[in-house]
Amino acid sequence: MPPPRPLVLLTDFGLRDSYVASMKGVILGLLPRATLVDLSHEVEPQNLFQAAFLLEATYPYFPKGSVFVTVVDPGVGSERQILAARAPHGIFLAPDNGILAGVLEREKRFELRAVTNRKFFRESISHTFHGRDCFAPTAARLARNPALFSKLGPRRTRYHKLNIPLPRSSRTGVRGEVLFFDRFGNAFTNIRSSHLKLSGPGRGTVKAGTFPLGSLRQAYYQVPRGRALALVSSTGQLEIAVNQGSAREALGLKKGTPIEVLF
Amino acid sequence: MPPPRPLVLLTDFGLRDSYVASMKGVILGLLPRATLVDLSHEVEPQNLFQAAFLLEATYPYFPKGSVFVTVVDPGVGSERQILAARAPHGIFLAPDNGILAGVLEREKRFELRAVTNRKFFRESISHTFHGRDCFAPTAARLARNPALFSKLGPRRTRYHKLNIPLPRSSRTGVRGEVLFFDRFGNAFTNIRSSHLKLSGPGRGTVKAGTFPLGSLRQAYYQVPRGRALALVSSTGQLEIAVNQGSAREALGLKKGTPIEVLF
Amino acid sequence: MPPPRPLVLLTDFGLRDSYVASMKGVILGLLPRATLVDLSHEVEPQNLFQAAFLLEATYPYFPKGSVFVTVVDPGVGSERQILAARAPHGIFLAPDNGILAGVLEREKRFELRAVTNRKFFRESISHTFHGRDCFAPTAARLARNPALFSKLGPRRTRYHKLNIPLPRSSRTGVRGEVLFFDRFGNAFTNIRSSHLKLSGPGRGTVKAGTFPLGSLRQAYYQVPRGRALALVSSTGQLEIAVNQGSAREALGLKKGTPIEVLF
Repeated sequence: MPPPRPLVLLTDFGLRDSYVASMKGVILGLLPRATLVDLSHEVEPQNLFQAAFLLEATYPYFPKGSVFVTVVDPGVGSERQILAARAPHGIFLAPDNGILAGVLEREKRFELRAVTNRKFFRESISHTFHGRDCFAPTAARLARNPALFSKLGPRRTRYHKLNIPLPRSSRTGVRGEVLFFDRFGNAFTNIRSSHLKLSGPGRGTVKAGTFPLGSLRQAYYQVPRGRALALVSSTGQLEIAVNQGSAREALGLKKGTPIEVLF
Repeated sequence: MPPPRPLVLLTDFGLRDSYVASMKGVILGLLPRATLVDLSHEVEPQNLFQAAFLLEATYPYFPKGSVFVTVVDPGVGSERQILAARAPHGIFLAPDNGILAGVLEREKRFELRAVTNRKFFRESISHTFHGRDCFAPTAARLARNPALFSKLGPRRTRYHKLNIPLPRSSRTGVRGEVLFFDRFGNAFTNIRSSHLKLSGPGRGTVKAGTFPLGSLRQAYYQVPRGRALALVSSTGQLEIAVNQGSAREALGLKKGTPIEVLF
Repeated sequence: MPPPRPLVLLTDFGLRDSYVASMKGVILGLLPRATLVDLSHEVEPQNLFQAAFLLEATYPYFPKGSVFVTVVDPGVGSERQILAARAPHGIFLAPDNGILAGVLEREKRFELRAVTNRKFFRESISHTFHGRDCFAPTAARLARNPALFSKLGPRRTRYHKLNIPLPRSSRTGVRGEVLFFDRFGNAFTNIRSSHLKLSGPGRGTVKAGTFPLGSLRQAYYQVPRGRALALVSSTGQLEIAVNQGSAREALGLKKGTPIEVLF
C-alpha cells in the first residue's frame, strides 16, 4: 500500500475553535490513513496576501503529489467559485480569490478546474463553512484518488490575481516595501533575490525607511546581537532583521515601509 | 490491518507548554500507529462551557468509533470521577464535571462507566496531571481495543450537568443570550435552529442587545462588508456576525448580551 | 512493517508562519509515514532555558527510540555545531548551545557526535533556516534508519551547558527561584523533589517572595478556589500555584522571584 500523499491545510480558522478539527474529522471519515499537515491556521482573518505568501513559501518543500487546501474565504456562500489546480508539484484547492496566483505563476504548467460537482461535497452544505462541507471532502477524495481531478467540474483558463505591490528596479537599485512580519519580528519585503542579481552578499547597500542597514549579509550572527541587518531570507525574499531581536519593533517598521537597495 | 480509529484530544493545556506532548508520548508508547487529532487545546483555563460546546459542535464530523478525550479538569486529584461513555458515535472520556452532558443528550443511547480500574492508568499517577497519567493511557487502550470498555469500572447512570442558560420561547419569538465568540469575533448564542422552526431565513427579525439586525440571513456576503447580520451558524446555533469583521468589537457584544428573535 | 518511531519537534518558530510546515514537508519527502509530534513551537524566541526545560520534562514520556529535534538556534549560520546524541531513551538533535545538557545529565550513557556530514542535509543550505535544511532531513534519515547515527560526523565528548541557577540547600531548608510559568500561571522553580527528600507533603513550609504558602500540598483542590499553594509538580519540580487561578498574577511572581522551603 503506497503511503498516503500529504494533505496540507492552510486556513485563517485559528486553533482555538472547532473549525480545523471539523475539517479533519470529515477528511478522516473518507480517508482514515490521511497524512494531515497543518501549514498554518493563524493567517489573519481574511488576509489573502498572507495566505498566498505562506502557501508559496512552503509548498515546494512538500513531496510532489501533495494536496494543498487553502481556506481563507471572505466570500464563502456567495457565487465565488472553488478552484482546483493540478500542477507538477501537486494539487491545489482554494477559493478563486487570488490565493493561488503566485503558485500558478511559479508552476507554469497546470490544469485548472472549477469545483462544481456536488458529489465531491458533503450531502448537506452550510452557507458559512465550506471548509468542512466542500473543501475537506474534495481534498480527501483527491488525496485518495488523484485521477478524480477531471471529474471536479469544467475547465477554467482564468483565475483571480492579487494586487501585490511590485518593486521598481533601475540601473542603480531596487525600491520595494515591507509586506509581512514573522513571529520574530523579521520583515519580509516584495524584493526577491532575482531583483538583486547584480549584487552578491556584501555588495548592495540597504535602507529600511530612512534607516541605513549597510551591505547585504548572509546570516543573523554576522552582526552583533541587537543590531539590524538585511539579508536574503530562506524563502528568497529580501528580509530585514535584528540579530536575536525584532526588526519590527527596533526599527518601527510597518507594512508598506519603503525598502531601498542600492547596487 | 484496519486503520486506527481517530483519537481526538480536547484540553485547556495550551500549545506552549509540554502537557499535550506528554499525553501524546504516552499514547504513542501504547499505540504506535495512533491517529491523533487535536480538537483544541486553547480552551480557556477551566472553562467547562467552552469545552462542552466545542466537543458537541465537532464530534459528529468524526467517523464513528472515534475516541474523544476531554481534559478540562479543575478538580484534578480530588474525588471527582473519570467518566467513560460508549455511544453510537464513539467513546468519550472526560472528568465527571458536566462536559459530556451535551453529547450524551444528543447521543441518547449510551453506556456509562466510572473509570476506576488502575490497570488502564500509568503505574505512577501524579496528583496534578491525570491527562498524562490516566486519560492518555486509557484512551490509547480503548482505541486499540474498544471491547475493553466493560473493564473500565462500575456502571453509572448519573452524571453531572452544566447550568447552560436556556432560551425562552413564546408565540411571538425567542429570547436568548450570547455564549461564546470565535476567533473572528462571531457571537454564538444559546438559540438553536430548532427554536427558530417557524421562521425560515428572511422571516425572523433579530436584535442583539438594542442593536437591530434585520431579518435572518444565510451567508455573510449577503450584507455589505462591515455590516452586521444574524444567521444560523454551521453548528446549528443562531450566530451574530459582521461580514469580514468582528461582531464582538463592532457591536460591543459580551458573554450574556441578550439576543431576541421576533417571528 | 514496524511502526515508525515518533519524530518529536521542539522549536521557537511559532505556528503562525511557515517554518514548522516547511520542516514537516522535508521530513515527509524522505519518510512518508513519519509519525510527527509537536512538542511545542511556542518557545519564546531564542529562550534556551525554556526549550531545555520543555524537552527534559517531556521526553521520558515518549517511547524509547523516539527522535527528538530541537531547533532554538540564535547562532544559526555561524560556526556553532549541530549535536546528535544517541542515548537509552532516544536520539536527540539540537544546536550545541546548551539545550541538550539536562537530557544528557539524566540519560548518563550516550554517544555524542557533531553532525557535519552534508549527505544528511538538503542539497542547498540557507544561512538562516537550518531547521528546514539540516535538522529536518537529518531527523528523517535517522528515524528511517537509526544505524546511520555513526555516519553523522566525528565523535564529541564535550558540549555546551546552560547556566541554570542552582538552589542552595542547608540543614534547615532550600532556597531557589522561579524559572518559568505555564499557561495557567503556575510557577515552576529550580527546586526539585530530590531537594525536598526530608519533607513529605504536609511537612515543609514554603514562601514565595514574602508570601507564606503554608505546608506542601499534593493537589490543587486541597486549598479553596483562588487560594495559593505549593506542591511538587507532575514534572518533579516545586510548583507554586493558585487553585483555578494564576499564581503569576495573584502573587505577582516573576522569573527569579526567590522561593524558600523550610523543613
